[in-house]
Amino acid sequence: MKLAILFGGASYEHEISIVSAITVKEKLSRYELSFIFCDQDHKFYLIDGTKMKAVTFSRGEHRKMPQIFLANGGFEQRGLFGSKKHDMPILNLIHGGDGEDGSIASLLDFFHIPFIGPRKEASMLSFDKHYTKWLANSLGIKTLPYEILHKEDKRAVKTAYPFIIKPARLGSSIGVSIVREERELDYALDVAFEFDSVVLIEPFIAGVKEYNLAGFSARGEMNYSIVEEPQKAEFLDFEKKYLDFSRSGNVAEASVSDTLVQQLRDAFKTIYLPLFEGALIRCDFFEIEGEVYLNEINPIPGSMANYLFDDFGDAIQKLLGSLPDKKMIRVKYDYIHSISQAKGK
Amino acid sequence: MKLAILFGGASYEHEISIVSAITVKEKLSRYELSFIFCDQDHKFYLIDGTKMKAVTFSRGEHRKMPQIFLANGGFEQRGLFGSKKHDMPILNLIHGGDGEDGSIASLLDFFHIPFIGPRKEASMLSFDKHYTKWLANSLGIKTLPYEILHKEDKRAVKTAYPFIIKPARLGSSIGVSIVREERELDYALDVAFEFDSVVLIEPFIAGVKEYNLAGFSARGEMNYSIVEEPQKAEFLDFEKKYLDFSRSGNVAEASVSDTLVQQLRDAFKTIYLPLFEGALIRCDFFEIEGEVYLNEINPIPGSMANYLFDDFGDAIQKLLGSLPDKKMIRVKYDYIHSISQAKGK
Repeated sequence: MKLAILFGGASYEHEISIVSAITVKEKLSRYELSFIFCDQDHKFYLIDGTKMKAVTFSRGEHRKMPQIFLANGGFEQRGLFGSKKHDMPILNLIHGGDGEDGSIASLLDFFHIPFIGPRKEASMLSFDKHYTKWLANSLGIKTLPYEILHKEDKRAVKTAYPFIIKPARLGSSIGVSIVREERELDYALDVAFEFDSVVLIEPFIAGVKEYNLAGFSARGEMNYSIVEEPQKAEFLDFEKKYLDFSRSGNVAEASVSDTLVQQLRDAFKTIYLPLFEGALIRCDFFEIEGEVYLNEINPIPGSMANYLFDDFGDAIQKLLGSLPDKKMIRVKYDYIHSISQAKGK
Repeated sequence: MKLAILFGGASYEHEISIVSAITVKEKLSRYELSFIFCDQDHKFYLIDGTKMKAVTFSRGEHRKMPQIFLANGGFEQRGLFGSKKHDMPILNLIHGGDGEDGSIASLLDFFHIPFIGPRKEASMLSFDKHYTKWLANSLGIKTLPYEILHKEDKRAVKTAYPFIIKPARLGSSIGVSIVREERELDYALDVAFEFDSVVLIEPFIAGVKEYNLAGFSARGEMNYSIVEEPQKAEFLDFEKKYLDFSRSGNVAEASVSDTLVQQLRDAFKTIYLPLFEGALIRCDFFEIEGEVYLNEINPIPGSMANYLFDDFGDAIQKLLGSLPDKKMIRVKYDYIHSISQAKGK
């Protein structure tokens, strides 16, 4: 079965996308894989599978490989004697900007290229942590209270210390700080505003129980991963997260009650359907006093959260067989016909 | 000054986009205009200005004109002896799907093509009437109470009669009905669900005062149109709206108090900044008991609401001089470098 892994992108998470792609390559060895690299200038290259190493990209060696172009129905490789179409389905593995903000979804949809990944609305609502609050709230899913601060706002925070500051539109813990007292506030805001003009502030709850659950829907049925209790050194910083994206060994299932598993699955399903159809996503939850709170939605989780699935290859196959169709609109020119008839033309 | 008008799209509003483009052409005669038609299959054609007539498209004559392709920095016209780049800024005039849902914004941004029009987040939040409620609510802008019904939901409506049913993601009054009593409900829902799987239901207030205001920000300053009190035969149906999109004569300013104008402008500015920068939008408001309510945001209004501006050409020129820059992200491969060094490679 053919599948192309699309990775890279003009994003702060460009490098971890490369790591993700290399990891997923190993886990999908049963597929006939292609690799499409999107560089920071938005040029696409078809990467030789044997060159799927981090240094290929950091050394710029991808530029020696064939450049390909978006075209209706697939990527096009142009040559002197015509062009070759690469029209296999795409696995969108571009983390952060481009991949998770709705750009890549818009592009692939526009060019009628089937893909695994969040569609544009799902991307937009999960990429921006402020919009995710709106979504969860409208679905009756609990989240922590929050406030929003814009770069140009007065730096007055109402949330009690300690709290956590996150750039609104970034993943992988980039620019995130825990602020314990007032004198740490300015620096933490400076760091977050380096990456985004909007930040989200939430109470920091030391020792809160965290659970991650991944899943997807295929042929009308939900498929869930095991529940993971993520290891955390308070929270994962970028370097640790970076290594985290190369995880391929299976992790131990969290020892949690059946009731909690059911609560997590119920919340996951409420968030997932129908917005995230076509994607394998990971939701990160808190458990507070027996209740489940949504922390984050990862619509393209690091290395596709492969380590949470017994048979990751099978999960991808199920998804591929159940990608959403985009409604086709046929234009009949009824109004123009009736108007031009009325004008006697 | 060069400018390309992009119109068409795979959308229920394809035909009115053609009408809009023809109207705007007349109003921007001082520009060196090009015309880019996006057909329903997402092929782009460069249209000869003298052929900018509705029948060109309904008869399929555009297919005889040069096809052009999205490329970095502009549209590309390919020929036997190399290709020609059309790299003028774009005025996005694709109404409804594609144009207003964030797809075109994503494409143009991705390919580094400057354009007038809503960016992808602004598109998404104004295209979906449900998301617009979230946005208005978060900004403290009043809207009518509402409920959401999905296609597969039980058809039980809590809102009191009479109410109005709108497909969540369509403009130009397509699929909209007023429902006065229960026996009209099923048909109205059938009509709305023809176009979208989600509908929004709001109380219908007979004789409510309506005011439209268009505007944009340029060089840090808000520019407002006159306030219009739209003519309405209860509400404009699609055929009337269709004619509405070809309006080019200036309309009379509504006779409203300075206080109300200020209220409308304040609400407009709150909605506009910073989300809609780069776009000329029209907001449609209700006035109820001295208070302003947002009805709809039109991020690409019919014929760009040219008839609301004294000097439309000047408005477009101001906007063109003040298009938002997309933040460039440079990838430095620091993590990959440090990891490969650690590995001794």
